[in-house]
Amino acid sequence: MSLEMRIGKRILLGPGPSDVHPRVLRALATPLVGHLDPEFVALMETVKQLLRETFRTRNRLTLPISATGSAGMEAALVNLLEPGDGAVICVNGAFGGRMAEIARRAGAQVTTVEVPWGDVLDPDRVRSALELLPRASAAAPRVLAVVHAETSTGARQPLEELGRLAHEHGALFVVDAVTSLGGCPLEVDAWGVDVCYSGTQKCLSCPPGLSPVTFGERAAERIRTRTRPVQSWYLDLSLIEQYWGEERVYHHTAPISMIFALYEALRIVHEEGLERRFRRHALHHAALVAGVEALGLAMAVAPAHRLPMLNAVRVPDGVDEAGVRRRLLERHGIEIGAGLGPWKGRVWRIGLMGESSTPANVLLVLAALGEALGRDRTGEALAAAERELAAAA
Amino acid sequence: MSLEMRIGKRILLGPGPSDVHPRVLRALATPLVGHLDPEFVALMETVKQLLRETFRTRNRLTLPISATGSAGMEAALVNLLEPGDGAVICVNGAFGGRMAEIARRAGAQVTTVEVPWGDVLDPDRVRSALELLPRASAAAPRVLAVVHAETSTGARQPLEELGRLAHEHGALFVVDAVTSLGGCPLEVDAWGVDVCYSGTQKCLSCPPGLSPVTFGERAAERIRTRTRPVQSWYLDLSLIEQYWGEERVYHHTAPISMIFALYEALRIVHEEGLERRFRRHALHHAALVAGVEALGLAMAVAPAHRLPMLNAVRVPDGVDEAGVRRRLLERHGIEIGAGLGPWKGRVWRIGLMGESSTPANVLLVLAALGEALGRDRTGEALAAAERELAAAA
Repeated sequence: MSLEMRIGKRILLGPGPSDVHPRVLRALATPLVGHLDPEFVALMETVKQLLRETFRTRNRLTLPISATGSAGMEAALVNLLEPGDGAVICVNGAFGGRMAEIARRAGAQVTTVEVPWGDVLDPDRVRSALELLPRASAAAPRVLAVVHAETSTGARQPLEELGRLAHEHGALFVVDAVTSLGGCPLEVDAWGVDVCYSGTQKCLSCPPGLSPVTFGERAAERIRTRTRPVQSWYLDLSLIEQYWGEERVYHHTAPISMIFALYEALRIVHEEGLERRFRRHALHHAALVAGVEALGLAMAVAPAHRLPMLNAVRVPDGVDEAGVRRRLLERHGIEIGAGLGPWKGRVWRIGLMGESSTPANVLLVLAALGEALGRDRTGEALAAAERELAAAA
Repeated sequence: MSLEMRIGKRILLGPGPSDVHPRVLRALATPLVGHLDPEFVALMETVKQLLRETFRTRNRLTLPISATGSAGMEAALVNLLEPGDGAVICVNGAFGGRMAEIARRAGAQVTTVEVPWGDVLDPDRVRSALELLPRASAAAPRVLAVVHAETSTGARQPLEELGRLAHEHGALFVVDAVTSLGGCPLEVDAWGVDVCYSGTQKCLSCPPGLSPVTFGERAAERIRTRTRPVQSWYLDLSLIEQYWGEERVYHHTAPISMIFALYEALRIVHEEGLERRFRRHALHHAALVAGVEALGLAMAVAPAHRLPMLNAVRVPDGVDEAGVRRRLLERHGIEIGAGLGPWKGRVWRIGLMGESSTPANVLLVLAALGEALGRDRTGEALAAAERELAAAA
């Protein structure tokens, strides 16, 4: 076998990873230092501070878990739940379903509140589910968990009212922000989020491999008062906290190069500023939608609930869904995503995340889609997108 | 706060990470492709093949877990164990103790066989522990687990007889090879190892962040016949196997840049060849020991049981252990390791792993240690090391 590494150039417009800034690639390639080196320890402190800024929180316990976003999800749930605990989990896509599965494996009594893929949850339905659980017993709602940005559908879940409901019922509010962090408003403190986790490869435009998490004081207190140890030693926040804290108690060896990369990616977020970053994502989303609709295609999520960074576009009847993606990849090096679960074969997922959210990419993906579909409305689509871009200038 | 990244040059002679080859750093900095991209899928196949070669196994289920070595340890144990299962765990240092802790959190009935730090386990004691467990019951020994290379002490555990004992008692043989893989002989198939896990940042000289694992057919069969799901969704091998297999069923997003780095690091191992690599580690170990002893210092582990890549050196009475490490770091940029647990303050741990195992580093660390200790025998130490190096030429 030939062992030469053969990796071509790609433009990443799928559900993640997104394109990575050259500064982040250079940071990745920094020669290593030890994970207990004073210079690395100082860098870890800055990473925590930059993550707090990005999550909009003052939570002390804010750090990247040494694994991908799915491990952040598991860390959030297994640290809070003990066998028999009640958990209400909102499911409107693939990742809500995954939270329920992880909570069940932690021994929780899981109640799911399910709505069709692409929809968002009505707080009244969530309230009913919380009220059905007994109060002041082991099965009382310990956790209310919801996905802020469903990567499988592109739906944005409003959070503030759900946070209030959780606290009214004595539950901790757990939010999956894998795809939203750094791409649209997320207010951990102001919205009463007790635990929030994310991934690095979406709107932070860092390679995949770390999961930023933040745990508020109520959640930290819950961890302190558990009756048995967290089932996962690797994801036990009480141990990880000591490793990332002043004590620097050895737990595992941090993924040093990935921390370098996250540091640089967070610096870039800091330099741009969150508000400008959110406006940029919103603008390119609006331009993409205008172009997609001018091409005669339909968005899969209602306008009021669309995420700016993940755009699910319905595949027209009779079109070879995989063939279009393959054509974009092979002809132009453009990656867009396929549908998952019930949406497999039915949507394309076009990501405009972090560094990938540019006017050039909006125009490029519209031109490439128009060509692949053989539509003669490509010129109109590009003009519609340009109008949106110009309106903001 | 100033956000410029300030990371100096280091020579990594501690317990890991080790120095990383420039080729691996360049691979890390490769612009990303998607984790389902055909080019990335092809690269994953080659990584699996190179890992099999390095583990000396034909096990189909051989892949890197998307987290650090400690997660590989947890994956090994939680996939095999169910609540109530018997597990015999050998403890002769920090990492054996960690295995016991993880097995307990998986609900296993753990029997530990303990010997003092720095010693290795006598098979007769292990046999006695296995024989004490009831046969053909839930508490029958499901797993015998041992650390091949105890990173906390530098002791090398002989494995072949323990493998036979495990199988005689119907147990699966689990081996921690975090520090040994690629640095000294390890024969997964020939020695009857059912599950082996490692880390990337030791003798493979790749940054930390991945845990190569291999599961043999007996272990895979055990996973298939579990009565309840693996408690960790993230580390569930039956799911990870489908993601890394032909089906490519989405599980998590692989840490793409780290896989690039591992690929290149494994290529370098392949190019050098395992036998040459083992001889190189053995030679530089011998030279270091000759020099350390000529300096008037003592090794902490008996000659018959020393690992070549991790050398624990006793701190002489009256010497400021941390002060010496700090002097090496601040004056020369050399990192060596401190002792853990009962050996805290009592040993230095000098790693000569992968790219860090060079004649230059042997001479450098001896010269720096001699200077820091104010010993006038530095010249003799260097000469003793040079004689060892020359004898092999």
